[in-house]
Amino acid sequence: MAAAAPPRFPASYQASRSGAARPSLRMAAAASPGWWQRRNSYPAVSMSAVPPPGPLTFDNHKVDMLLDSVKWDSKGLAVAIAQNVDTGAILMQGFANKEALAKTISTRKATFFSRSRSSLWIKGETSMNFINVHDIFLDCDRDSIIYLGKPDGPTCHTGAETCYYTSVYDALQGSETTHERLVTTTLYSLENTISRRQEETVTEGSKPSWTKKLLLDTQLLCSKIREEAGELIQTLLDNEDKSRAASEMADLLYHAMVLLRVKGVKMEEVFEILRKRFSQSGIEEKSSRNKY
Amino acid sequence: MAAAAPPRFPASYQASRSGAARPSLRMAAAASPGWWQRRNSYPAVSMSAVPPPGPLTFDNHKVDMLLDSVKWDSKGLAVAIAQNVDTGAILMQGFANKEALAKTISTRKATFFSRSRSSLWIKGETSMNFINVHDIFLDCDRDSIIYLGKPDGPTCHTGAETCYYTSVYDALQGSETTHERLVTTTLYSLENTISRRQEETVTEGSKPSWTKKLLLDTQLLCSKIREEAGELIQTLLDNEDKSRAASEMADLLYHAMVLLRVKGVKMEEVFEILRKRFSQSGIEEKSSRNKY
Repeated sequence: MAAAAPPRFPASYQASRSGAARPSLRMAAAASPGWWQRRNSYPAVSMSAVPPPGPLTFDNHKVDMLLDSVKWDSKGLAVAIAQNVDTGAILMQGFANKEALAKTISTRKATFFSRSRSSLWIKGETSMNFINVHDIFLDCDRDSIIYLGKPDGPTCHTGAETCYYTSVYDALQGSETTHERLVTTTLYSLENTISRRQEETVTEGSKPSWTKKLLLDTQLLCSKIREEAGELIQTLLDNEDKSRAASEMADLLYHAMVLLRVKGVKMEEVFEILRKRFSQSGIEEKSSRNKY
Repeated sequence: MAAAAPPRFPASYQASRSGAARPSLRMAAAASPGWWQRRNSYPAVSMSAVPPPGPLTFDNHKVDMLLDSVKWDSKGLAVAIAQNVDTGAILMQGFANKEALAKTISTRKATFFSRSRSSLWIKGETSMNFINVHDIFLDCDRDSIIYLGKPDGPTCHTGAETCYYTSVYDALQGSETTHERLVTTTLYSLENTISRRQEETVTEGSKPSWTKKLLLDTQLLCSKIREEAGELIQTLLDNEDKSRAASEMADLLYHAMVLLRVKGVKMEEVFEILRKRFSQSGIEEKSSRNKY
C-alpha cells in the first residue's frame, strides 16, 4: 500500500471539540447512540440490555449428566478456581462437590465445599462479596473447574483483592518479608508501576522517569498519545511488518494507561465497559449470538 | 481545566510521515533509542537486558523454611495452578509436592507431582512445551500455588492452548456439544469476536457489522483510531469525569484491536513486548527496582 500523509482531524471533529459546545454535545451524544449501539454496529447488545448474572434453570437430566461427567476424587471433590472475568486474576481456589457445582450452575454465585466445616460454602455469604459467575469451565480431565466471574469486592478474608499475595521469590530474597505483592499479569504490573510513579516525589537534582514526566505534563502526555496513535495507524498505511504494529500498540497502550492513571481509571473498568458492550459472558453471548 | 482545541499533529510529525522519508527515518530510529530506552525514560531496563527465566540458586536453609511453610495435605500435596503471565489464562492445574515446588523454584520450569504415575513431572519434558516460570505465589492459607509463567507452546495434551475448553453452560444448552470454546477473559473474548468477524463473508443485501466495516475499510479504521485517541485526550484536557475517560479508552482499545487483527497481531504479543520493556517479572523486577 502506498504511503500517505495521515488525514487530519475532520473539520466536524474540531468543531465538536470547542469547549462551549461541549455540554450540549454531550446531551446530543446521550440522545444519539454510540457506534456500538448503532444499527449494524457491533454489537447489537447495549449495556443496559446485559443483565447481571442471575439464576438459571436447566433441564435436570442434563445437569445430572454433566455433574456425573466430572471426575470427582475419592472424597467427592474437584478443584474449583475462581477467576476474575475482566482481569484474569485468580481470586481464590477451593474445592467443589457435586452439590456445590450444581448450586453454582443454577444460582451463578461461586459455591464451594468447605473441607474444614464439611458443608457448602457460598463465597460471600458472610462478607457479601459474592463472585458472580459468568461462565464455568471444566478441564480436559474433567477434574478441575474454573468459575469465571465478577467479584462484588475483595475476595480474600484478609481484605486483599485475591488470596495470592505471597511471592515465593520475594520471600527467598528476604528483603520484603513484610511487603505483600498481589499476583499480577503483565498489564496490571504495568498499571501498578505507573501508580508507583505517580506516588513518588521528584527531588531537586534528580531527573524524573519518563512516566513521571508524562504524569506531570498534560501537553506532553496528550501529544505522545496522539503521536503513538498516528504511528500505529502508519504501520497499516505503510504496510509495515507485524512486529512494528505490535510495538506501536505497546507504546499507545502504555501512554494511554498513563492518562488513565491521571484520570483515576483502572483497566478493569475499561474491560468491564467492553464486556457489557460486547456481552461476552457465556450465557448472554450465546443468547445474543445471532443478533450481531 | 479550561477547554482547548486539541493541538494538531506537529509539523515535524507530518514531515516524518512522508512516504519517501520513511526508510531513512526508520534507520535513524534504530540508531537512536526508543522512549523506553532513553536516559531517564521508564524503565532503564531495555528488552535485551531481560533474560528468559533461567535457573536460580537460593540459600538452602531459606528454601527449606519456605517449603516447610506450605500446608501440604495428608498426601504431601498442594494444588498448583499454571497461569500465563501475559494473558492471565489459566493453562492447567496439577499438584505439587515439596520436591516439585523446590524444582520449580530453582529450574523455573513448572514442575508437578503426577498422582497417576507417583513421580515428578516437568511440564514439557516430552512435548517440549515448558512453562517458563517468572514468579510463584502462595495463597493466604499457603495450600495453593500459582506458577506464573510463559508457555513455550500449547499446554494441553490435546494441543489446545489451555486445558479448559469445555463450557458448562454451552454443554447444558446443548447446542454446541462438538464445539469447544477456550476459557477467555473479556479482552480475549473481544479479540476472538473480532477474528470471527474477519472470517465471516458479507452477503449481498445483508449489512455488515461495524467491526466488519472497519476490517474492510482502511481509511475508516484509521480515522476512527485517530478520532478515539483524540476523544480520550479530550477527557483530560476538558477535565471530563472518569467514566467518560474509561469509555473513550474502551473505544480506542477496541478500534486499535481491529487494526491489530488486520495486521495479524495478537494482544499477547503486545503484552510480551511491554513485559520485556518494563521487566515486570518478579525476579528481574526486584533486581532492577532501584534502577528505574
